[in-house]
Amino acid sequence: MLDFIHNIQTKVYFGKDVISHLDESLRPFGTRVLLTYGGGSVKRSGLYDKVMTILKDGGFTVTELGGIDPNPRIESVREGVRLCKENDIDVILAVGGGSTIDCSKAIATGVYYEGDLWEMCATKHGVLKALPLVDILTLSATGSEFDAAAVISNMETNEKLGSTYTYPNVSLCDPQNTFTVPKNQTAAGTADIMSHIFEGYFSQTNDSDLFDGIAETVLRSCIKNLPIALAEPDNYSARANLMANSSMACSGMPEYGKQKTGWPCHAMEHELSAYYDITHGVGLAILTPRWMRYILKKDPSCVWRFAQFARNVWGLEGDDEMALANAAIDRTEEFFKESGLPMNLTELGIDDTHFEAMAAHANANGRFALGFVPLTNEDIVEIFKASL
Amino acid sequence: MLDFIHNIQTKVYFGKDVISHLDESLRPFGTRVLLTYGGGSVKRSGLYDKVMTILKDGGFTVTELGGIDPNPRIESVREGVRLCKENDIDVILAVGGGSTIDCSKAIATGVYYEGDLWEMCATKHGVLKALPLVDILTLSATGSEFDAAAVISNMETNEKLGSTYTYPNVSLCDPQNTFTVPKNQTAAGTADIMSHIFEGYFSQTNDSDLFDGIAETVLRSCIKNLPIALAEPDNYSARANLMANSSMACSGMPEYGKQKTGWPCHAMEHELSAYYDITHGVGLAILTPRWMRYILKKDPSCVWRFAQFARNVWGLEGDDEMALANAAIDRTEEFFKESGLPMNLTELGIDDTHFEAMAAHANANGRFALGFVPLTNEDIVEIFKASL
Repeated sequence: MLDFIHNIQTKVYFGKDVISHLDESLRPFGTRVLLTYGGGSVKRSGLYDKVMTILKDGGFTVTELGGIDPNPRIESVREGVRLCKENDIDVILAVGGGSTIDCSKAIATGVYYEGDLWEMCATKHGVLKALPLVDILTLSATGSEFDAAAVISNMETNEKLGSTYTYPNVSLCDPQNTFTVPKNQTAAGTADIMSHIFEGYFSQTNDSDLFDGIAETVLRSCIKNLPIALAEPDNYSARANLMANSSMACSGMPEYGKQKTGWPCHAMEHELSAYYDITHGVGLAILTPRWMRYILKKDPSCVWRFAQFARNVWGLEGDDEMALANAAIDRTEEFFKESGLPMNLTELGIDDTHFEAMAAHANANGRFALGFVPLTNEDIVEIFKASL
Repeated sequence: MLDFIHNIQTKVYFGKDVISHLDESLRPFGTRVLLTYGGGSVKRSGLYDKVMTILKDGGFTVTELGGIDPNPRIESVREGVRLCKENDIDVILAVGGGSTIDCSKAIATGVYYEGDLWEMCATKHGVLKALPLVDILTLSATGSEFDAAAVISNMETNEKLGSTYTYPNVSLCDPQNTFTVPKNQTAAGTADIMSHIFEGYFSQTNDSDLFDGIAETVLRSCIKNLPIALAEPDNYSARANLMANSSMACSGMPEYGKQKTGWPCHAMEHELSAYYDITHGVGLAILTPRWMRYILKKDPSCVWRFAQFARNVWGLEGDDEMALANAAIDRTEEFFKESGLPMNLTELGIDDTHFEAMAAHANANGRFALGFVPLTNEDIVEIFKASL
């Protein structure tokens, strides 16, 4: 087991009607609130009205930043920072999914950042000084409610880049707020959760028992609960399990004690989103089984890890490790397909035009030399091609 | 899945030579340090000298409180509080296992407690105002390095009572510091870890997938790694896994989303320790399988949970749930026995003299009406008798 540091400072209220803790969560930080949200689903669901009533009753002053895009843009970060400075904001309240929370993290740190904000987003750094951040989660996917990371896009330069910003101070996680999430977003969000696990699970370290076990548990729980949530959108138990999985998967904990990997599927997917603005989880679902097959072929010595995945996650049995490995990859691909996700880039209108440039850019910004099976630009192009 | 709140503020440095973070961990809080430790093993191992060198080189002023007992006494708490007040202490540094850290938590809060300190220890309350606390862990057992609880004993009144105090600000967890832990303490510590899981795992809630999975992972990892640590005391991987399990097991996380249970084995064991000053983990190892058999017989409808335990922890197979349940309990008892732990109270010189009084006191202070299978005073006496 390798060394690690655990330092997650976020307080999580998880369960039914935890919005009752909103006032007490904001108040220690002040009364001037920047309220951030996305495209309008929080208004349709009635959550926006509930939040505004609590803020009004509590005597909070509210400045709004709505319309944050699914792949949140640097323009929203700039606008948010401007609003914070102009209105002397004390605390940011993000109501939404990972995009809204990610954008809010960049705003919270951007207020204190001296220099260009895109430079901040394009730089790898540690946790930064930030305004306090409280969120109300509405989508089980990115885990932004329980980590310090955010991913911001610059559509002018075709760049979508992740970095570390700040932890939310408080996350209010009510699974009921995900009852209205449509099927395709539920499936894509779960693919994102599972990808957060896959990225770290496929590591050369074989003795980090607790954290490997957490990773496998999250995967088994996603496999069990996604079909239930798709069939019964208001099944509380299924939605609650997906939400808990979301927070755990991207927290870093499933990777504690393990050799760092390069998070290759995320780096490749960020290129797809940056060029074609596709849904992050859809891109990950398409790339992941192709990446698995590619690395297993490139370095068959990693078959032991795939066999462990087959046994402990899919419950497959047998002595032929390569057969187990391939069966587990097939099951993973079928699972995404049965969840209704498009499983080819062609379906999304993507062809091979930019594969070379995307591979080069991914490799320049990613950490493909690290980890389980290192990948070159040529390898990345091959994985993109296999995903067509 | 039931509601829960996650709010663990402890920063953990885990790994080889994390004592290198000691200076930076203490410094934000001040330079006047109360150094607490136990019976002398930290001096024999050389850890005390290492710590003193770092403190001296860093210009810290050190006040010492050594000789903290394995079941830490209210007298040590009183003495620590006196020393803190007298020396205007800024931060407490606990070097040791759960007893030293527990005692230090009570001291940290006792400094601000107005009223009698035993009253503080005998009261159920939430997290209290406290002096900052940093610890260097030397035993994988109680999980005190990653929770807010402590258990303090009053030998005059034959009471050993747990309550909530404060989270350590920083825990320095170096598995190498457990290489010198003797076999009996290694086994007893692991029994304590496993008991922390058992107490919450046996719950009526059947849909908290992630947290049930974490619980099962900790148990499997203890079962795998304890025999290795006993055979090879300086096997880093085994010691590291036991240490990670220790921190997770008592953190509350394995119980998130689940119906609260009464932690019956701990409440019963605290009576044994309060009357006979036995090793906590030994008492737990003796009581646990007897408690399991008793509740399964008293309420056979709970067999489903034991069957899950049999399948997911012991890897047992079969359709007869009662047979699986009994086999899993037998395996648990055999595991403790094979670890070299005494498995009868008689071996410890304990007879039935005080069973009635202990049961009455346990039930008055515990939460036996709660949880998986509620227990009466008579039930508790029967479990004590079965443990003779």
